[in-house]
Amino acid sequence: MPPVSAPSSRTRVRRLPDRAHYDADTVAAIVDAAMLCTVAFQIDGTVHAIPTIHWREGGHLYIHGAKASRMLKALTAGEACVTIALANGLVLARSAMHHSMNYRSVVIYGRFEPVTDPGYKLNSLRAFIEGFYPGRWDTLRPITNKELNATGLLRIALSEASAKIRAHGVKDDEEDLSWPVWAGVVPLHTVTGEPVAERDSVLQQVPKTRLG
Amino acid sequence: MPPVSAPSSRTRVRRLPDRAHYDADTVAAIVDAAMLCTVAFQIDGTVHAIPTIHWREGGHLYIHGAKASRMLKALTAGEACVTIALANGLVLARSAMHHSMNYRSVVIYGRFEPVTDPGYKLNSLRAFIEGFYPGRWDTLRPITNKELNATGLLRIALSEASAKIRAHGVKDDEEDLSWPVWAGVVPLHTVTGEPVAERDSVLQQVPKTRLG
Repeated sequence: MPPVSAPSSRTRVRRLPDRAHYDADTVAAIVDAAMLCTVAFQIDGTVHAIPTIHWREGGHLYIHGAKASRMLKALTAGEACVTIALANGLVLARSAMHHSMNYRSVVIYGRFEPVTDPGYKLNSLRAFIEGFYPGRWDTLRPITNKELNATGLLRIALSEASAKIRAHGVKDDEEDLSWPVWAGVVPLHTVTGEPVAERDSVLQQVPKTRLG
Repeated sequence: MPPVSAPSSRTRVRRLPDRAHYDADTVAAIVDAAMLCTVAFQIDGTVHAIPTIHWREGGHLYIHGAKASRMLKALTAGEACVTIALANGLVLARSAMHHSMNYRSVVIYGRFEPVTDPGYKLNSLRAFIEGFYPGRWDTLRPITNKELNATGLLRIALSEASAKIRAHGVKDDEEDLSWPVWAGVVPLHTVTGEPVAERDSVLQQVPKTRLG
């Protein structure tokens, strides 16, 4: 059984706590299944939230960007809240109020720390590319020191995180079960379409991606 | 041509401003294409960000939830930032640094206002259901006054919003174009799977959903 207590007060799921999970494996699986997270933070008391690409290594979620970016600067100066949400299904009930979605989500609290060691940065960017496109890193034009230096890399620990999952059928009221309307779940999937090669792409062999 | 200036300083896109759009039609189309947004807000100086279902009517984005929810209470007490991000494609370049994603995103700033008039609430919940499942509202067990009263409904104007779109091919450096690796875009699509009817669902006719 996963641990049932939250790692901190702000991480504790208040609405529908029976959907909450706090174990590291559940959190990691949701982080890995998504490519985009939303990073919320403050600048001078104003809340900002920006979607960005992420990846995971061990107990940390990583993001990257131009070193000069306002977000990357703000993130090392204060607390952040990272959100990931994956829609897995449309839940159609017999009453409007019980319509819902199946989803997996994660909320992470903490402070990002910069990753500055060049060797560590290089390995982490490799993990990013290899995580999404296994085997691709060694086939790419090698990264230059200038590129590596211009890239800001930040990570946040997954220690103060909670996951929330809805993965079941319709929960209508007992007295509505005979109402004559279709009720059930319509699954949602993210799929890859036909790859579109650049006109000047040298090889025509499409790489594998983790998403399909 | 869409307007090129941001409606406010905090809405102005700073990173890659050539991807920015500030016109209402572009913002509305992205809001409509997504079912989940992330709402970021503060409680006692701590930033929280929570994914939730949304819909649009005219110039507002709507969310709903239990009236007692901490988020709904906090949202009417302070400023919020709403983010929507849709991943449309994986961009595989010849160099690690130019790997990217095609996406459409929206960031909205402002303060949510409660919608309390019962008739207005009823119409908005109908718009929510009809927007996702055209024709479904009238087939459902009618909403009760108790349900309507227990539902908190909030809306935020789309007037202080920006959209950001990447929808093009690979942008490698000129000198890398002959590097012998596949380069191109792998499209991402969200599709609906085979509907799973509740065992006690009376009708077997699956409703239409806006998502496919």
